Amino acid sequence: MSPSSLDELIESLRCLPGVGPKSAQRMAYHLLQRNQKGAARLAGALSHALAVLQHCSRCNTFSEEEICQRCANPHRDASLLCVVEMPADLAMIEQTQAYGGLYYVLMGRLSPLDGIGPRELKLDKLMARATDGVVSEVVLATNFTNEGEATAHLVSELLHARGIKVSRLSRGVPVGGELEHTDSGTIAQALIERRAV
Amino acid sequence: MSPSSLDELIESLRCLPGVGPKSAQRMAYHLLQRNQKGAARLAGALSHALAVLQHCSRCNTFSEEEICQRCANPHRDASLLCVVEMPADLAMIEQTQAYGGLYYVLMGRLSPLDGIGPRELKLDKLMARATDGVVSEVVLATNFTNEGEATAHLVSELLHARGIKVSRLSRGVPVGGELEHTDSGTIAQALIERRAV
Repeated sequence: MSPSSLDELIESLRCLPGVGPKSAQRMAYHLLQRNQKGAARLAGALSHALAVLQHCSRCNTFSEEEICQRCANPHRDASLLCVVEMPADLAMIEQTQAYGGLYYVLMGRLSPLDGIGPRELKLDKLMARATDGVVSEVVLATNFTNEGEATAHLVSELLHARGIKVSRLSRGVPVGGELEHTDSGTIAQALIERRAV
Repeated sequence: MSPSSLDELIESLRCLPGVGPKSAQRMAYHLLQRNQKGAARLAGALSHALAVLQHCSRCNTFSEEEICQRCANPHRDASLLCVVEMPADLAMIEQTQAYGGLYYVLMGRLSPLDGIGPRELKLDKLMARATDGVVSEVVLATNFTNEGEATAHLVSELLHARGIKVSRLSRGVPVGGELEHTDSGTIAQALIERRAV
C-alpha cells in the first residue's frame, strides 16, 4: 500500500553495504522527512561521481583525470611502486609521510569465494605498470589477512618471473589486521622494515 | 589528494542516519567499484522520490497523490482514526488485519531534546482532521516509549478539549518497546483491548 516511489527508494538503499530492509526503511523516512536537502545532495553526488570518476591509467585509483595528480607529480620517486588493495589503504600510507614513491591500487584482493581471481583483479595491468623500465622495486602493502597475503604471494611470484625486485611491508602490522584500522606509527615501522620476498 | 567528486560523495553519504566517516568511505568505494548500477538506481530513486512524494492531505503519510489510496478507500471505517508516529507503525497495524479504520501519521513524536514540540508535529492539522464531523473515536497508537507516551498524553488532552472520544492501545505492547519491533499478535491484542483515556 506504500507508494511505489518510496518502495523503490527503500529497495535502492539496500545496495549500500551492510544495509538491510529495516535500516533502508529508516534511512528513507529520515531522508524524506528530516533531510530532503541531504537527499538531493546525495543524489547529485552519486550522479556526478558516476559521470566524472574513472580509474587513473597509471595507479588505477579513482581519479577525475586520465592520470591522477599523485602519478603526475614529478617530485615522487618513480622507481618505487607500492601495491595496495584499496584507496583507503593508500591514504593510510600517505598519512605516515614515510613513503615518497608511487602506488598501484588493486581495487580489491584475491577472494575465490566472491569469485575474484587474478583476472578480475586485472593483474596484467599491474604487470605492465611494474615493468615500465622505471620501477626498480615493488612494495607489497596488501592487508595481512588471509586474502591479502594470498594476493601478495601471487603478485610477488608474477613479478619475480619478470625479474622485478619485490618487498613486503614488515610484520609490524598485526597479523590478521587491516591497514585501514592500524595507527600511522606501526605502518611507518612496517615500511622501514620491509623485507625482500 | 582524493578527487573532489569522491570526497563530495563520501560527505553526502553521511546524511544517512548512523553512517560515520569510515562507513561512508566504505559505501562510496563499494558503489563505485562493485555496484555502479545500484548507485545509478539509488541516485534516480532519490531524485524521483523527492520529486513525486508529498504528504497525504488527510492522513499525512507519504503519498504520490494528494489523497492516498487508503484514505480514498470507501470500504474503510471513516469514524475510526488511528494516530501513529511513523509510516512503519501504520504498516505494522495493517499487518494485523485487526483494524479497518483510517490513520493519521504524525511523522515523529514529541521530543524536546531534538527541538520537536507540538508546533513541529503540526498537531493543529491532526485536530482539524479529527474534528471533521465523521470521526467518532481517535485511537492513539504512538509508541510506548517515554516520548510516545508524552505525545499520546498531549494529543488526548487536546482532543478531549474538543469533545472527541479518545482511546489508547492496551498495554499488550511491552512498556518501553516500539511497535516496529512487536509481533502482530501482540499488536492485535492491544487493539482489541484499547481503553478510554
